[in-house]
Formats: sequence, structure tokens, C-alpha cells
Amino acid sequence: MSQFMDVHHGMKDITADQLMQAHKADLAIEKEEGVHFERAWADPKSGTVYCLSEAPSAEAVQRIHERAGHKADEIHPVPLSV
Amino acid sequence: MSQFMDVHHGMKDITADQLMQAHKADLAIEKEEGVHFERAWADPKSGTVYCLSEAPSAEAVQRIHERAGHKADEIHPVPLSV
Repeated sequence: MSQFMDVHHGMKDITADQLMQAHKADLAIEKEEGVHFERAWADPKSGTVYCLSEAPSAEAVQRIHERAGHKADEIHPVPLSV
Repeated sequence: MSQFMDVHHGMKDITADQLMQAHKADLAIEKEEGVHFERAWADPKSGTVYCLSEAPSAEAVQRIHERAGHKADEIHPVPLSV
């Protein structure tokens, strides 16, 4: 398992409720790919959302995000953290 | 105080030790601007580093990062999180 940071653009004016619903949609199916979405942060002004996950691969992260209706624009493995 | 996610590009091949040293350089002076750097994640392959902080402003985050020798390329307020 590795950690990943993925980024969504174009989420301008996202609300706290929409972020929570999107996160719940991921959590509902994440186990099917062995993924766990840990945290997400949103900047409604620029429309950027960052998601931190633990997953077997970037592809597994993307499959969950796609099925939950919000494909990521970038997925970076982040093997280093402090 | 607000939360911010900042992004550094061009950090290709950054090591765990370099990430830790950079983070420590921030921590050593962050109080002078009322900033706290909470976490940082690095992707050595693409050279991307993400830093999560709590700060009075994006400018305060940048002043600490600049003085510590690693100016951020993007700083986003992330008022929403899950």
C-alpha cells in the first residue's frame, strides 16, 4: 500500500456539503479496490480539491473516483511525508 | 487562522532527509508569522511537494517558505476539509 495525493480542478464554488457527499461516495465503494480515502481539502475559489489516500496503485484510486462520479485530474504517489 | 495547501514544483529526486530538513527549517521560524506547518507530502518522481499549514494568510505562509529557502509555487486556502 502506498500514499497518493490526487487533485481535482474545476470544482469552483464547491460547498462543504458537496465535499462531504463526494467523500462519502468514495468511502462507500473504496474497499472494492483496497483504497482508503483519508482526507480531502477544498479551495472553492480556485475550484481545487486535494485528496489523500492509501491505495495499492494510482489506477485503483482513479477507478474509485471515476465510479463515484469525480475523476481526478492528477494522481501523485507521495512516498515521502513528514 | 485558516488552512492552506501549498505546492512546490521542481523538487525532483527529493529525499526523505531533504524533506525533513526543509520541514524543520519552516518549523524553526514559523512562529514569527503565526504559521504552523502541519504536514508535507512529496512525490520525488514528478518533483511535487504539498504542504498543509494553518496560518493567518497565504502571504504569511509564503514569507516563512521564502525565508526557509523554498518559495511555494502555489498557495491555496482550503477552508473546506473532511
